[in-house]
Amino acid sequence: MGDVESFLAEVVALTDGRLDELLPEASLEPKRLHEAIRWSVFAGGKRFRPALVFAVGRTFGASDARLLSTAAAVEMIHTFSLIHDDLPAMDDDDLRRGKQTCHKRFDEATAILAGDALQTLAFNTLCCDEALPPATRLELVGGLASATGTPDGMVAGQQLDLEAEGAAEELIELDQIHSLKTGALITFAARSGALIAVASKAEAEAIDAFAEDIGLLFQITDDLLDISQTSETLGKTAGKDAAARKMTYPSKFGYDRAVGIADDVRRRAGNALEPLGPKAGMLREISTYIFNRVN
Amino acid sequence: MGDVESFLAEVVALTDGRLDELLPEASLEPKRLHEAIRWSVFAGGKRFRPALVFAVGRTFGASDARLLSTAAAVEMIHTFSLIHDDLPAMDDDDLRRGKQTCHKRFDEATAILAGDALQTLAFNTLCCDEALPPATRLELVGGLASATGTPDGMVAGQQLDLEAEGAAEELIELDQIHSLKTGALITFAARSGALIAVASKAEAEAIDAFAEDIGLLFQITDDLLDISQTSETLGKTAGKDAAARKMTYPSKFGYDRAVGIADDVRRRAGNALEPLGPKAGMLREISTYIFNRVN
Repeated sequence: MGDVESFLAEVVALTDGRLDELLPEASLEPKRLHEAIRWSVFAGGKRFRPALVFAVGRTFGASDARLLSTAAAVEMIHTFSLIHDDLPAMDDDDLRRGKQTCHKRFDEATAILAGDALQTLAFNTLCCDEALPPATRLELVGGLASATGTPDGMVAGQQLDLEAEGAAEELIELDQIHSLKTGALITFAARSGALIAVASKAEAEAIDAFAEDIGLLFQITDDLLDISQTSETLGKTAGKDAAARKMTYPSKFGYDRAVGIADDVRRRAGNALEPLGPKAGMLREISTYIFNRVN
Repeated sequence: MGDVESFLAEVVALTDGRLDELLPEASLEPKRLHEAIRWSVFAGGKRFRPALVFAVGRTFGASDARLLSTAAAVEMIHTFSLIHDDLPAMDDDDLRRGKQTCHKRFDEATAILAGDALQTLAFNTLCCDEALPPATRLELVGGLASATGTPDGMVAGQQLDLEAEGAAEELIELDQIHSLKTGALITFAARSGALIAVASKAEAEAIDAFAEDIGLLFQITDDLLDISQTSETLGKTAGKDAAARKMTYPSKFGYDRAVGIADDVRRRAGNALEPLGPKAGMLREISTYIFNRVN
């Protein structure tokens, strides 16, 4: 196992441990709701956003104890968005991370409420994180709220994505949708690591530039995987973008050209890290890892 | 217009003004999402929860400037819960506050996202409220999150309410559902006024006891109105509880006995205010107003 693989495995163990502590027990009423929350949170996510919190935070010397709850909160928001995006009224997906989606395994009402509760719990986690000073907690709550909501966050991106299906959109809008739907939370994850570690202004700016490219890279490779992989490898329904006539990088430029663009973005992400020198080694490895990922 | 009516009218004007400042403009993309948010928020709500924030805060000398954003945030959470509760997968309601519900006027996906975004915006509002010191903001975020989520808040109450439909539940469970679904946010609204005004511990305890009774009173009168009023007066579909075979105070005890219980609760709420003396006059009037309300 390479450095980046063992780092990612460590992040999964750390994040899942903290999530287990923070989420209500499945034996507590309302049991069905808590079972649904745990079903979706522990469905085998790669914990990519928590990995960014840890990788950036450690780059600037933050202890894991200070990073743990923020990593868990970001993953709660991510899972909330997956549960709601999969609903019949949205992307109507039966499969996620290789398991039944929340509304398939439970029911629609429970899935809506499980997503709602995960959003609440994410903010509660940040505001009650005693490892961090009050001012930092407030900045994290504000940053996560902005990355989650509208007009600058994930919810706005999902709305635009739904509206764009089947429409002949321009690339500039495609980038905007990517940036809101996927990029905002990824950028927040990276930025939160720098904030918690009290990185300098110049360091934080380098991380911001890196995080934006990483978010875009993640989305382009996601689009590519939707075409190149089977549902089994992917753990979710493959070929959905084409079926929904979604505008994506490969649909716009063709598969090979889109791979070239992803490689450019990977290189640009590496350049953004230049000012940080050798201590940003793991962040460089992560961007290569995303470029090479198969699912 | 009596004292309490003119106070409530003032609260509507103050709260709606701040909400208009805080919500994204409908002209901003994604327009449909922002239109949906504004449609539901400005559908003519009575702003009862903001009224509690103001009434309690003013009782202990807080300026309106310190209360405004919290009042708006509480109303955002309330509206988010109405939008999601009205969805086809939940209570499946077409009418709310005399207007089409959000998913009827727009569509289900937009309604789900509008609710999600309102939750996010509520927490963003509290954490960015520069009228309040950081420690107070954090306490408000934590308190609102707990009152909203699970296992101690509104989302848990909605889950239990859905599960209880048609089941032969005991009264103790009925009280628990009321207390989570309606009581938790009402209690938070009242408590936040005391927190912002830096009330003493004894004062805050009196408000907590008052708020719990007020939440229960509000729910019992809601149940009574569902039976006694037409949909037109009510601004939402009447007779829904009986149709869904929901356990309510009137279904359990009969209409007249339930009115008697509501009157007992009103009296108990008044007793809870005893230690506060004459300055709690408006709070007393509010409890009588709720008891007498027709919609």
